[in-house]
Amino acid sequence: MLTEMENTLNNFIEIYHKYSHLQGNDHALYGTDLKKLLEDECPHFLQKKNAETWFKELDINRDSAINFQEYLTLVIKVGLEAHDEIHKE
Amino acid sequence: MLTEMENTLNNFIEIYHKYSHLQGNDHALYGTDLKKLLEDECPHFLQKKNAETWFKELDINRDSAINFQEYLTLVIKVGLEAHDEIHKE
Repeated sequence: MLTEMENTLNNFIEIYHKYSHLQGNDHALYGTDLKKLLEDECPHFLQKKNAETWFKELDINRDSAINFQEYLTLVIKVGLEAHDEIHKE
Repeated sequence: MLTEMENTLNNFIEIYHKYSHLQGNDHALYGTDLKKLLEDECPHFLQKKNAETWFKELDINRDSAINFQEYLTLVIKVGLEAHDEIHKE
């Protein structure tokens, strides 16, 4: 049986693959995939920065695709903001 | 309504607070709190490294407590391993 943390991590992996599947490469989110992910999953993250700027920021190795590790950088940013929000309330 | 990603992030935050609450400081996992978290949530992470070694590794600012940002480092490590496992199967 999986622990709560393992289940939660699997959700993140599923979210990544849901969008990386769009263009058939399991390990790559391309520009339009990332845009769709941001629009669907964290739309308020597009208020200050557009999808293209996010893409450039996240594509650390500059291979024009967001791999799973690079995606986790986004998760961290969203996570830190969500955590800050909770303690503001 | 929260998106799938926001819900998943809230789970991570809840897991952190579940253990940080143990000693009454919402923003600190102390040694025994981290040990309990590792034992409950990712026991196989204790096979190669004990809780004390994990604590030293995660406590980047050396304040003898794991804050939320430092906890996310653990989440990333567990996440990358979980993702690798999926593609090994």
